[in-house]
Amino acid sequence: MRGLLYSNGKLQYRSDLPKPVPQSGESLIRVLKAGICRTDLEITRGYMDFSGVPGHEFVGVVEQSPNPAMVGSRVVGEINCGCNACAICKGGLQTHCADRTVLGIKGRDGAFAEYLAMPEANLHGVPDGMADEEAVFVEPVSAAYRIVEQVVVRGASVLVLGDGKLGLLIAQTLDIMGAGVTLCGRHRNKLAILDGTTINAVLEGELKKGKQYDVVVDATGVPAGAAKGMALTRPRGSLILKTTTAEKREIDLNLAVINEISVVGSRCGSFVHGMAIMETGKLKVRNMIDSEFPIEEGLRAFEAAGKPGAMKILLSF
Amino acid sequence: MRGLLYSNGKLQYRSDLPKPVPQSGESLIRVLKAGICRTDLEITRGYMDFSGVPGHEFVGVVEQSPNPAMVGSRVVGEINCGCNACAICKGGLQTHCADRTVLGIKGRDGAFAEYLAMPEANLHGVPDGMADEEAVFVEPVSAAYRIVEQVVVRGASVLVLGDGKLGLLIAQTLDIMGAGVTLCGRHRNKLAILDGTTINAVLEGELKKGKQYDVVVDATGVPAGAAKGMALTRPRGSLILKTTTAEKREIDLNLAVINEISVVGSRCGSFVHGMAIMETGKLKVRNMIDSEFPIEEGLRAFEAAGKPGAMKILLSF
Repeated sequence: MRGLLYSNGKLQYRSDLPKPVPQSGESLIRVLKAGICRTDLEITRGYMDFSGVPGHEFVGVVEQSPNPAMVGSRVVGEINCGCNACAICKGGLQTHCADRTVLGIKGRDGAFAEYLAMPEANLHGVPDGMADEEAVFVEPVSAAYRIVEQVVVRGASVLVLGDGKLGLLIAQTLDIMGAGVTLCGRHRNKLAILDGTTINAVLEGELKKGKQYDVVVDATGVPAGAAKGMALTRPRGSLILKTTTAEKREIDLNLAVINEISVVGSRCGSFVHGMAIMETGKLKVRNMIDSEFPIEEGLRAFEAAGKPGAMKILLSF
Repeated sequence: MRGLLYSNGKLQYRSDLPKPVPQSGESLIRVLKAGICRTDLEITRGYMDFSGVPGHEFVGVVEQSPNPAMVGSRVVGEINCGCNACAICKGGLQTHCADRTVLGIKGRDGAFAEYLAMPEANLHGVPDGMADEEAVFVEPVSAAYRIVEQVVVRGASVLVLGDGKLGLLIAQTLDIMGAGVTLCGRHRNKLAILDGTTINAVLEGELKKGKQYDVVVDATGVPAGAAKGMALTRPRGSLILKTTTAEKREIDLNLAVINEISVVGSRCGSFVHGMAIMETGKLKVRNMIDSEFPIEEGLRAFEAAGKPGAMKILLSF
């Protein structure tokens, strides 16, 4: 099959990839569209030591499934696949199973190929009214919503650092959930996506001097974001970390102690929540799409996604 | 008056220190006993750029006060003194006032001298049944209790890293509050203080391989403690930071994101709670006292407190 392969530090397009063979409990999905995320770029810089087909934001059609009712359905999928045998999985926390595979990130080929296989239990049907271009956002919107489960955002002053795709989705999701949101970015064109919302979208120099926030979210995607966020968090506030980088980062832990700041790592969220946020119809996702490339032009797509200021790049099959 | 002075990077004993002059709302307190804490040692290594009389763990007698009923009372005192004018102070969070002074730590002479002055509102009377040697522990026990306000400890598996004074007090406090506590230290003689309690006190090599804990507390007092604690915290668990050091520290923030760990800075607690824990009568504090020095031998006392394995060193007047 056609797809992208990352191996030996190199990303390449291949037309001879073996079609995945679904294991017990797994469905085979034909990918319709997939989105390139910053994590995918980090992976091609060595993050997670991944080798295989990358890609974890997708929408596809079920071609084979242990649940016959699913065949033919348009689906999105939760990316963490637990072992279902350990105590953590049995407690329902498959997303943190030590032996988990993660679609296109860890031990499991991902969505940048014609077909992928994943557990049927991870799949969620896509409502008819939701276009493919929207459905690929369920994964990052679920990750955005995860913050709502971790800290109280309703009524809180929230600063989101970073006007990349995830930052824009987080700002919108927390706004919908009742926070007073400021988003701080570097690109006027990206901030403009939030025009007409109640979000205060500003350039770095426009942040109110000396103001600190109840909750600060580092969605910058760069190593310096965490330290910058710490300085903007009020005493006893929370700094949410969404950024993972291949490089190590340093933050001033004395500041965390003295100001009693909670630094909270935040990753994937349940698609039930992400879907619910999508279904409010309030998220502006379509104007976050930069361009779409056929899988054959996947390397060009990665190049485009890596350009400063790039918005969401989609791959189609 | 007699006391210790830290200035220009040097700690010295002086008999000619000026007696403090209480400002509006402040009481003058004659110090009976004071405890040397690791923070005091860090201060003599440059932490907080403090200059003046160090010391913040004390018990004393009120000699002058805007509240006449307090004169003659034996007291302990909360160490953060807010400006009482800013929004943070008006919200009741004087401990985090940006303009606060902190007894013997920031902008206010401390307890390693015959007299100190501090706001009357910060003082707490000491019950008659509580000896001076016990009362000096109210401050660190309150700091230990602060953790109970930050994370759910009842029923949680808690690992306390560090068998120094604070580590031993934290382990005992969380044990009293219903956590399942393991304390990991380096000194058999210190671990032995917990004999007869339900705390599992172990040397580093004796920790159960591969086990992670719901809550890990870094009370090591050394830069490496935070990273070590992170690795021992279960996914979605909490790492509580009690350690402040003059040196910068690095932790793997990717690990915080991937395992969704909350890294929670923790500082001072209310003396109401510390006193309540002390009054349970269950804390073993007396056998944590190493020795007592008259203030004239304060430099020797600091030397003793800085020795590896030292327990609580008291100063008397």
